[in-house]
Amino acid sequence: PNAGNEMHNNWESLREGQSLVADPRLPGKCYPAVIDNFILNGPTVDVHAVESFVHHAMEMIMDEAVKKASDVQEKVCEWRSPEQLKELLDLDLRDEGEPESKILQRCRDAIRYSIKTGHRHFFNQLYAGMEPYSMVASFITEAIKTSLYTYEVAPVFTLMEETVLRKMIEMVGWEEGGDGIFNPGGSMSNMYAVNLARYHYCPDIKEDGLVAVQRLVILASQECHYSISKSAALLGIGTKNVYMVPSDSRGKMIPSALEELIKTAKSEGAVPFMVNATAGTTVLGAFDPIEEIADICEKYNLWLHVDACWGGAALMSDRHKHLLKGIHRVNSVAWNPHKMLMVSLQCSAFLVRDKTSLLQRCHSAQASYLFQQDKFYDVSYDTGDKSVQCSRKPDAFKFWLMWKALGTRELEQRVDRALAMARHLAQAIKKREGFTLLMEPEYANVCFWYVPPSMRSLPAGPELWEKLHTVAPVVKERMMKKGSLMVGYQAHHGQPNFFRMVVISPQVSREDLDFVLDEIHSLGKDL
Amino acid sequence: PNAGNEMHNNWESLREGQSLVADPRLPGKCYPAVIDNFILNGPTVDVHAVESFVHHAMEMIMDEAVKKASDVQEKVCEWRSPEQLKELLDLDLRDEGEPESKILQRCRDAIRYSIKTGHRHFFNQLYAGMEPYSMVASFITEAIKTSLYTYEVAPVFTLMEETVLRKMIEMVGWEEGGDGIFNPGGSMSNMYAVNLARYHYCPDIKEDGLVAVQRLVILASQECHYSISKSAALLGIGTKNVYMVPSDSRGKMIPSALEELIKTAKSEGAVPFMVNATAGTTVLGAFDPIEEIADICEKYNLWLHVDACWGGAALMSDRHKHLLKGIHRVNSVAWNPHKMLMVSLQCSAFLVRDKTSLLQRCHSAQASYLFQQDKFYDVSYDTGDKSVQCSRKPDAFKFWLMWKALGTRELEQRVDRALAMARHLAQAIKKREGFTLLMEPEYANVCFWYVPPSMRSLPAGPELWEKLHTVAPVVKERMMKKGSLMVGYQAHHGQPNFFRMVVISPQVSREDLDFVLDEIHSLGKDL
Repeated sequence: PNAGNEMHNNWESLREGQSLVADPRLPGKCYPAVIDNFILNGPTVDVHAVESFVHHAMEMIMDEAVKKASDVQEKVCEWRSPEQLKELLDLDLRDEGEPESKILQRCRDAIRYSIKTGHRHFFNQLYAGMEPYSMVASFITEAIKTSLYTYEVAPVFTLMEETVLRKMIEMVGWEEGGDGIFNPGGSMSNMYAVNLARYHYCPDIKEDGLVAVQRLVILASQECHYSISKSAALLGIGTKNVYMVPSDSRGKMIPSALEELIKTAKSEGAVPFMVNATAGTTVLGAFDPIEEIADICEKYNLWLHVDACWGGAALMSDRHKHLLKGIHRVNSVAWNPHKMLMVSLQCSAFLVRDKTSLLQRCHSAQASYLFQQDKFYDVSYDTGDKSVQCSRKPDAFKFWLMWKALGTRELEQRVDRALAMARHLAQAIKKREGFTLLMEPEYANVCFWYVPPSMRSLPAGPELWEKLHTVAPVVKERMMKKGSLMVGYQAHHGQPNFFRMVVISPQVSREDLDFVLDEIHSLGKDL
Repeated sequence: PNAGNEMHNNWESLREGQSLVADPRLPGKCYPAVIDNFILNGPTVDVHAVESFVHHAMEMIMDEAVKKASDVQEKVCEWRSPEQLKELLDLDLRDEGEPESKILQRCRDAIRYSIKTGHRHFFNQLYAGMEPYSMVASFITEAIKTSLYTYEVAPVFTLMEETVLRKMIEMVGWEEGGDGIFNPGGSMSNMYAVNLARYHYCPDIKEDGLVAVQRLVILASQECHYSISKSAALLGIGTKNVYMVPSDSRGKMIPSALEELIKTAKSEGAVPFMVNATAGTTVLGAFDPIEEIADICEKYNLWLHVDACWGGAALMSDRHKHLLKGIHRVNSVAWNPHKMLMVSLQCSAFLVRDKTSLLQRCHSAQASYLFQQDKFYDVSYDTGDKSVQCSRKPDAFKFWLMWKALGTRELEQRVDRALAMARHLAQAIKKREGFTLLMEPEYANVCFWYVPPSMRSLPAGPELWEKLHTVAPVVKERMMKKGSLMVGYQAHHGQPNFFRMVVISPQVSREDLDFVLDEIHSLGKDL
C-alpha cells in the first residue's frame, strides 16, 4: 500500500516472514519472536533509505530555506489567505503514508509559503536575519534530540548552559555571580521572575497557596510587555493587581509615579512585592531608569526584575550599556539573545542574583525517577529541578556556538552597527517628505508615520489622525501581497497606526533602508 | 584579528572604506552613510562564505549526528565527568572569535560527547530513536525561524497546527470537536489544564487573583507526574492542595479513594475543582480507570483532565485504545507525540473539549502590537493569545510531516509493535535466572530487578532489599562508562532500585533486548 516509501519495505517483508537476519553481534540467536503477529526480529526500518532521505532533505533545505530564503532578489513572503493555503497544502492526514518524493515536495511547499524571516527586508518582529552558527547549532540539537534536565542525558549542553549563563551574569555586572536558566521565550522568563519574587517574599506560598496571603501587587510601567499581566493571571495574582505605572512621553517609567503607586497599594492593605522595569520596551524601545527604580525598591524592600528581553543586547556594547545603568543592583533579569543578538528561536535567559539556590528551591519537585540522589556523578549538574518544565531544549548551545565563532567583540560590533543603523534611518525619515518620526530612537525601534500626499495638507487634528490610522494597515496588506517587505505597525496610546522598523541583521544596509522608505511611499502614495 | 573567519572580511574592508558597492537594485544611490564610525553601506557578511559553512556543517551533522549516532556498532555515550568534559570542550567565551574549521571541530566534539538518544541501545527516557521525517521538519523550522503567534509570520505552521490538533481531537473521540495548542513539553500542557480548570470554575480569578477564593484542591493519583505539583505551586494553589489519591498495586488510581478524598476536601471547606487522571504513568506505565473517574467527576461537577503524555499513543491503536476507555468524556487531555510516537523533541499537545474559546479567554492579553484587529485577514488565525507564551515554536509541523509520510496505519503499527516488544521483554525476563519482573506490563514500561548471583540465595527481606537497592546504580554507572547501553532506574514507593525499560523505536529488535539482558548480567554479575 505504501509502495513509494522505501524505508518500510523491510517491515513488510519481515511480516511476511522473509529475511529474518540476525543481529551480526549475536550469531546463532536467530529464532523468530512473534507477538500479536509481529515478528520482532531485526529492525523494521531500512537505515540506508533513511539516510538517503535525510541527505536529500538537507540539500533541499540548503537550497530553499537557507540560500533562496535569504536572497534579497526573492520575495519576503508569498502571501496566501488561509483558505487558499489550505487548498495548496493538502493538509489532511490520512491512513496511508506518502512516498518520499511527495514528502520532499511538501517540505518545499512548507518553505515556499512560509515567511522568510532571514530575508533582508523582513522587519516585522524583534527577531530577524539568518545567523548561521546558531542555526547549525540548532540542527545539531535537533539531530541529537535530548532534554536538558540531567547531566546524564545532556552532559555537553548542561555545561554549555552553565558557561553562557555565567558569561551573561558577568555582563549584567553581578560580581558575586548568580544563577539562571534558559526558557522557551521571554514571557516564560518574566513569569519565572514573578514566581521567584513571590517565593522570596513568602516561601510558604509554594506549599500552602495564596489563600492565607494578603493581596499581592506587582508594579510595572504601562509600556511593559504583556507577559507581566499574563504571569499575574497564571500565578493566581490577578491582572488587576498589576499596577501600571505611568510612563513619560518617551515611554520610560516615571519613578515618582512608581513610589506613589507603591504607597497607594500599601494604603489599600495590599502587599507590593515586585517591580518590573523594562529595558527596551516592545513598541518604542524605551529604557526605564533602573538606578532610580532600584533606589525605590531598596527603600521599600521590593524585588526588582528587569525585562531586558529586547534591550539586554546593549549590555554587550561599551557605547550603549549606559542604557541599563544600575542593572547590577537588580534581583533578576530576563534577556533574549534570540532577539537583537540573532540567536535562533528560542533562546531566552532568566538570570537571578541570588546564590542560595532560590531558583531550585522555588521550583523543585524532586522527581525520584529523574533526580536519583544515588547517581555516580555530582548531581548538582542535574539542573532540571530549577525549571517549571520537565523536558527542556538545550537553547544555550545555540548562543554558545555563535559566541565562540564571533567573539564578544564582534557581538558588540553588531549591536553598535544595528543601533547606528536605527539612527541613520531616523535621520533619513526626517529628511523625507511624507515621513514623520514619532520620536528620536533611544534604541533600535524606529517608529514613524507615512503620510500619503492626499493627507499632507490636512491640519493636525482628529480628521488627519483618523485618516492616517488607516494607512499603515493598507500599506502592510499591499507589501505582503506583493511580497516585497514586511514591517510591523500598531496603534499606541491613542495615536494612529504607525510603523515600527527594527534593524537587527548585519546583512541589512543603508540601501535596504532606502528601499523600505521608497517602497512604503510607492505602496501608499495613492491613499 | 579574526583572520580565519571569512564571513567578516567584508565587514573589515567596509570599515576601511573599500568596496562600497551599491545595491544593484538601486543604481546611482551609492553615497556612504557613516554613523559612529560605521559605514552603513552594503551588507557586512559574505553570503557565499556563510553558505559554504552551513553546507560543510550539514555534511558533518549527517555523518556524525545522523549516521554515526544511530549506528549500533558505535557507543551510546562516551562518558566524561563534568570536570573532564569542561577541559575537553574549552567552554570559555572570549573576546575574539574562532575560525570556521575550529567551529566545525567544536560541533564534532559537542556531538561526540552528547548522548546518542537515536541509538538502538538508548532506553533511558520516555523518548528514543531517530525519526527522520520529524527531524527534517525540525531542521526546516530552524532554518525558517519563526514564531507561532500570528498567521502573518507563520501561515503554514498555523494551519498545520490546526490540522494536527483536529486529528488528535478526533482520536480522543470528541465528536463535537474541541480546541488545543502545542506547548514546550508535557509539564506545560498539564499546567494549562490546571489553569483552564480553575478559570472554568471561576473566571474572575484571572483578574482578581486568588485572594477572595476558598482554598482550591486538585486530586491526582500518587503515581501522577510531578508536573501536577509543580503547576499547583506555580499557580498559587499550593502543593499541599494536591490531594494524592491512593493507587492499587498496579499503579492505578482507586476510584473509591478518589471519592473519599473529594468528600474530605469538601468537609474541610475547600473546593475540589479538578481531577487529574494519568494514562500511562511515568514509572509503571499504569492507566487510571477513566470511565469510573469520569462518573465521579460528573457527580461532583469537577473538571477531568487526563495526562496522556505518555499513554496517549495508545489512542492510535485499535488493539490498545481500550486502555483509555472513557477519554471521550473528559474535559482536557495532554498528549506528547514526542514520546511513544517519536516526534522530535518537543511536541506536546494540550487538547480541550470546550468550544467556547475558553483557552483564548483564559490566556488572552490582547497585545496591540501583535494582535491588531484591523489586519487584512481573518485574525481568528492569530492563535498566539491562546498561549501563556509569546514566541512559540511550530512543533506541530514535525508531527504533521511524519504523519503525512507514514500514515495513520503505520503509526498504529509502530505503537502495536512497541507494545508487543514490551510483552516479549517481560516474557524474556521471566525466563531468565537472576531477573525478576516487578509486574506484568500494562503498556510499554517493563520494570525489573537484576539480582546478581551472590544475592540469589538470600531470603526475601530487608537485607536482600538493601543489597538489591545498590545494584542498579552500579550497573548504570558501568554501562555508561562502557558506553554500551542506557537504561533508567529508580526506587519507587519503598521498593529497592529497579530498571525501567521502554521500547519505542521500530529500529529496536528482539536481538537488542537479548543484548540488554546479557549486558546487564555481564556488568552486574560480580556484585
